[in-house]
Amino acid sequence: MNPVTFQGVLAARRIVYQFLKPTPLIRYPELSEIFGFQAYIKHENHQPTGSFKVRGGLNFMSQLPADQRKRGVITATRGNHGGSIAYAAKQFGVHATIVVPHRNNPEKNSAMRAFGAELIEHGVDFDESRELCEKLQTERGFRYVHPANEPPLVHGVGTYSLEVFEDLPAVDTIIVPIGAGSGACGAITVAKAINPDVKVIGVQAANAPSVYRSWKAGEKIETDSADTVADGLATRVTFDLPFSILKDGISQIVLVSEAEIREAIRMALRYTHNLIEGAAAAPIAAARKLRRDLSNQDVVMIMSGANVDIATLRWVLGEE
Amino acid sequence: MNPVTFQGVLAARRIVYQFLKPTPLIRYPELSEIFGFQAYIKHENHQPTGSFKVRGGLNFMSQLPADQRKRGVITATRGNHGGSIAYAAKQFGVHATIVVPHRNNPEKNSAMRAFGAELIEHGVDFDESRELCEKLQTERGFRYVHPANEPPLVHGVGTYSLEVFEDLPAVDTIIVPIGAGSGACGAITVAKAINPDVKVIGVQAANAPSVYRSWKAGEKIETDSADTVADGLATRVTFDLPFSILKDGISQIVLVSEAEIREAIRMALRYTHNLIEGAAAAPIAAARKLRRDLSNQDVVMIMSGANVDIATLRWVLGEE
Repeated sequence: MNPVTFQGVLAARRIVYQFLKPTPLIRYPELSEIFGFQAYIKHENHQPTGSFKVRGGLNFMSQLPADQRKRGVITATRGNHGGSIAYAAKQFGVHATIVVPHRNNPEKNSAMRAFGAELIEHGVDFDESRELCEKLQTERGFRYVHPANEPPLVHGVGTYSLEVFEDLPAVDTIIVPIGAGSGACGAITVAKAINPDVKVIGVQAANAPSVYRSWKAGEKIETDSADTVADGLATRVTFDLPFSILKDGISQIVLVSEAEIREAIRMALRYTHNLIEGAAAAPIAAARKLRRDLSNQDVVMIMSGANVDIATLRWVLGEE
Repeated sequence: MNPVTFQGVLAARRIVYQFLKPTPLIRYPELSEIFGFQAYIKHENHQPTGSFKVRGGLNFMSQLPADQRKRGVITATRGNHGGSIAYAAKQFGVHATIVVPHRNNPEKNSAMRAFGAELIEHGVDFDESRELCEKLQTERGFRYVHPANEPPLVHGVGTYSLEVFEDLPAVDTIIVPIGAGSGACGAITVAKAINPDVKVIGVQAANAPSVYRSWKAGEKIETDSADTVADGLATRVTFDLPFSILKDGISQIVLVSEAEIREAIRMALRYTHNLIEGAAAAPIAAARKLRRDLSNQDVVMIMSGANVDIATLRWVLGEE
């Protein structure tokens, strides 16, 4: 039985709204003209942690049993999942340990520390951090918060899709970046309950196509590398819970190149005046590729996060 | 008698919330550490027009008599006031003509056109555009929407201050950029009604200090130039209605240099991951200068707008 339900999303909303406001869904007339469809952006980049994930972290923390709250939590992250857990842990008075890979985005690290989390740097990529994390869970008794295989996270992040349907009942297509996959699973769960005709399209980086390949093959496939500017998409593996929902629920998964992601960051700056990270730009890049198929539709692009560092921004701007 | 009232702000809220969501007030832990006070940002840059002014435009348009709605409106702008009027006019089915100076921010022009406004380029600066605008009002029968001397605009933009008090009842100080002055007047009106101990501090560019000098002198003073990267602050004159409220209501006005404004834009990028225009950065620049006086306070900086063009952004980033 699927542990992720629409009811779970509805229940999560009560928790989420104790801490956060609904984010805006804005129609951008210039993007609409360029793309030939009604271009709406769901601004999850406006969250206090700069990412949609905080919705999931808060819902997760609210359901944590008292003994686990006392012992504390641990997780691995490239940044946004960790920011969410650090932020939510602080709100609920829980100690959070966060493992990040070496050479992780320094601004994300500094933000997680500022939320009060204890940071450990380990491994060359997210997946190596995750392995240490699973080890420390056993050794130190922390509750390990898996970045994807936790129904309360999916229920929490599903609330943004609920807001999309409330603000734009006529929505035709929702385009969601897929890293670990929780956002896409939330969108699928909500769309299925409210209007199964709505298409949920996922986006991955061509350089980190694990979920795309798994979806094509019908079984989980790991990649050797995940080298993309979109650190929110940089995972080499496909996780069980999201895969169980995505494999039949997603309408399509689109791959976008590094150049397409960088161009989409510039489009977001120019036409929406929002600073966004690569993962958040991926839906714009995908929409651009698919614009003929989407012609005249009401299309919502999930702008999942803002957390890009200044060095990356300077590089992206410099190549124009 | 002052035509701007707290009651007017409360009434405006009902109009504003038909179209817009409340914006987030976010506490940034890293800025709080750096500044030595609790640093909160009120995110008016998240509005659909990228500026707080849209609150005023909507309220204004809702009160326009039927004959004037039919004839249409005209206004002069560097961008954000015009974006507000263009957006609001569209919502209410009113024709809007907007006069901008030559060499105005091209992205702001393009956004106003995309909202459906008719654009006229005239004059070397905002004040010359305004003069043409006043002339066309008579010739063509449009309703001229003055950028500052309109109580419904002040009531509308006052709603962001209402949200500040609701989200942070303990607020000590609100720092507001002053261009035409409507935002500051809204904050003064709301603070006076809810808690007169709250200080409202204004910020102007040292290169466009008309309101600052007028406040010091006790009478309206015009400057010869208004040459600042913060186009939202670039006016050479002080307007009657805002001056009547500001002259006794503002606690203090701080001047910030061009270099301080650019540095504050970079701080916003780095610590809040928001792309903002110069006027919106001015409160951060002012807070930095005043940090000893503000020590340990709950300080709200109004991040008034996002509308900076890519060329300016590239310049600001390049000099770091």
